[in-house]
Amino acid sequence: MPTATQRFVAENEARLLDELKQFLRIPSISTLPEHNQDVARAAEFCAEHLRLAGLENVEVIATSRHPLVYADWLHAPGKPTLLCYGHFDVQPPDPLELWHSPPFEPTIRDGSIYARGAADDKGQMYVHIKAIEALRAVNGTLPLNVKFLIEGEEEVGGVSVTEYVAKNPAKLKADVALISDTAMYAPGLPTIETGLRGLIYMELEATGPLRDLHSGIYGGAAPNAVFGLIELLAKVKNAHGQIQVPGIYDEVAPPAAEEKQSWAGLPFDEQEFLKNEVGSSQLTGEPGYSVFERTWARPTFEVHGIAGGFTGAGSKTVIPAKALAKCSFRLVPNQNPDKVVAAFRKFIAEHTPAGIQTELKVLGQSPGLLVNPDHPAIRVAAQALTDIFGQKTVYTRSGGSIPIVGDFAEHLHIPSILMGFGLPDDGLHSPNEKYSIDNFYKGIMAVAHFMELYGKNPL
Amino acid sequence: MPTATQRFVAENEARLLDELKQFLRIPSISTLPEHNQDVARAAEFCAEHLRLAGLENVEVIATSRHPLVYADWLHAPGKPTLLCYGHFDVQPPDPLELWHSPPFEPTIRDGSIYARGAADDKGQMYVHIKAIEALRAVNGTLPLNVKFLIEGEEEVGGVSVTEYVAKNPAKLKADVALISDTAMYAPGLPTIETGLRGLIYMELEATGPLRDLHSGIYGGAAPNAVFGLIELLAKVKNAHGQIQVPGIYDEVAPPAAEEKQSWAGLPFDEQEFLKNEVGSSQLTGEPGYSVFERTWARPTFEVHGIAGGFTGAGSKTVIPAKALAKCSFRLVPNQNPDKVVAAFRKFIAEHTPAGIQTELKVLGQSPGLLVNPDHPAIRVAAQALTDIFGQKTVYTRSGGSIPIVGDFAEHLHIPSILMGFGLPDDGLHSPNEKYSIDNFYKGIMAVAHFMELYGKNPL
Repeated sequence: MPTATQRFVAENEARLLDELKQFLRIPSISTLPEHNQDVARAAEFCAEHLRLAGLENVEVIATSRHPLVYADWLHAPGKPTLLCYGHFDVQPPDPLELWHSPPFEPTIRDGSIYARGAADDKGQMYVHIKAIEALRAVNGTLPLNVKFLIEGEEEVGGVSVTEYVAKNPAKLKADVALISDTAMYAPGLPTIETGLRGLIYMELEATGPLRDLHSGIYGGAAPNAVFGLIELLAKVKNAHGQIQVPGIYDEVAPPAAEEKQSWAGLPFDEQEFLKNEVGSSQLTGEPGYSVFERTWARPTFEVHGIAGGFTGAGSKTVIPAKALAKCSFRLVPNQNPDKVVAAFRKFIAEHTPAGIQTELKVLGQSPGLLVNPDHPAIRVAAQALTDIFGQKTVYTRSGGSIPIVGDFAEHLHIPSILMGFGLPDDGLHSPNEKYSIDNFYKGIMAVAHFMELYGKNPL
Repeated sequence: MPTATQRFVAENEARLLDELKQFLRIPSISTLPEHNQDVARAAEFCAEHLRLAGLENVEVIATSRHPLVYADWLHAPGKPTLLCYGHFDVQPPDPLELWHSPPFEPTIRDGSIYARGAADDKGQMYVHIKAIEALRAVNGTLPLNVKFLIEGEEEVGGVSVTEYVAKNPAKLKADVALISDTAMYAPGLPTIETGLRGLIYMELEATGPLRDLHSGIYGGAAPNAVFGLIELLAKVKNAHGQIQVPGIYDEVAPPAAEEKQSWAGLPFDEQEFLKNEVGSSQLTGEPGYSVFERTWARPTFEVHGIAGGFTGAGSKTVIPAKALAKCSFRLVPNQNPDKVVAAFRKFIAEHTPAGIQTELKVLGQSPGLLVNPDHPAIRVAAQALTDIFGQKTVYTRSGGSIPIVGDFAEHLHIPSILMGFGLPDDGLHSPNEKYSIDNFYKGIMAVAHFMELYGKNPL
């Protein structure tokens, strides 16, 4: 029999979806300065809806880049305090031509809502606000204390929120953080993630001749910045995907035996993963490791983009003077980002081709993290998910990075519950990003239920 | 004592330079469709000035892309016929921010005129038209028969002119062609080029996953189109610049002993070449070959540009689905372009990394060519240059490609005189392209003098 909060959600489905659509229409692309006003509008949207849900002390906090939003409700003495985190900024939608409907005009198809940010993270963080609204509508009060901290720089490194957490530990102090910015392992299968990879995001620039040269006249004697960058990057991994930077694997902590055993029990069809999610002719990666290990528990090196020379229509026979690549390492628990950066700088210095100069800029870095699944809040969260979705909650890791988890651990000394309502094929950072509408509603029910259960938990 | 034509040039310097400026103001960039009208305007400019110089049967010939211009004057029975060739299209001027004056607002600095196309090839081909004007102004007639064929697609593969030459051999028939689209070996040192490299210009596209993927979630298992393209291209040359495509060097004709000897006598300071022309930390290329051999007599592989994934401001953690490179082989005499393309296709098929699909498009191809310096017209041309510049004419090669030389050889069975008035540091295809104003005037004198001398030559 549905609870009162579940009935509230069911009776308000149309309005809740309509509100989410309003939120998704704001093109809050944090990496593009021309969208700064939109990021600010998304912050105001969050603040307004926190107020409507009954949160207090709602603040839009200016930073050196994009604003933060804070709110709290602290009228449950003797009860735990939950810190809800999410982000209202989104990735750029390009390549635009691949979207079947406009990225900022949310469109319903086959039970999902399609829009940039639908799953990452607007549609998920909005669940927290609506859970508060549902609990207050039904009970007139909340079963525990809550604080909200919502940021607008998650997709660009989250510098402001990191600084804010470091400077305001007393204000933000809580017993546990709740983050819904991950995916369920499979449709209908409630999932809590207990491990995250870290990230070192970098820009590598190569310079060859002082200016672009005519390849007929100079070809054979002059260094080529694009080719030099290609040669250098190609050396970072071998044909098996093994990173060639010395020492990179030295501190990698292997997953625990129980973790590996649990992963082996997850439903997984490698051919389906290849065909429906990756969409290439074959999978790649280190031999001897399962897909779970390769994506959750092994470091990787990727080139996210490269540009240099002439790539317009037709022919231009230049030897390019400059080339740029964006690249990253994903790190796993126990790897030290500073050590990896230092090893990579050494590798670059040793392998930069003759005649080429290189410059490496680190745009951001965060370590990999593990969460203990035996923490009481995590156990209660797993129970709440199991109750709402009707299936036993599984524990997985994510290959992605949520640097705020590290900030909360370091400055507030609290664990984070990674309770995600996305799905593996939601297309985060890709064209046609989507979010299950059913998960949106069940997410609100599950978060409300978790708050009810956790509020009963002795401190 | 100056001849009458030399006096004519000297007396008309200001006007001649002003006309050239008008020509250079037309942004006739053949590779960019938005400049199609400008290419057509440049054709009309040529036609108008051919008429003013006294040429007859002036035609602007429509093609499937950019127009050709034809003109002739055939009233010297018993005299040789000279076919003057040039092109009025130019390369794109980007990167614009590196120009010290606007690329299409010709500016005089230190005895040179700076503009896109100043040396390549407007300022050089205009020399031919002005030589005709000078001879007719002074003598009322011409010392030989002349035909002009000027094209607007040289920078984009010259398909239309190739077709036109193939279809109109009788109309274009001549004893020798004159092409001024090369450089003098050094300032003041008159130069005729006797060898050209060929060119195979290609686009190589790589596809990995069906869409851009999140590198956190899929990194370690999904192929990356940018990295796949990088891996493949890096294999095409080794660290010494040696092309790794099997058989590529098999048919390379080494330069004749006399050629190598003559090159060894050319003034050349490798440190100055490195510092003032190339501007990198060191030269590169195949060990065991001189710079002349590497740039004139050895094939090369270059990547002219590469694009794929995210390269905007900030961070985007995608595994890119697609990547594209523009690349080329320069070929030397005796290499068969078809064989090289076939060998490269095989190489790509064998070395494309796992999970990646590649597609190679050949945008244009032409073989390397040699011209016999003992041909009577070449000897007369060398004499004319020696007379005007006061230094003995040297024979060099060019590492660049002039496909029309092959077309004239194949369809008209005539050699081409490569009498260039550019300089090595003119910055062809680069920002701040320039052209020596003194060479412009001397070029007009030299071409007029060559016509006078060659007109006296028995057929």
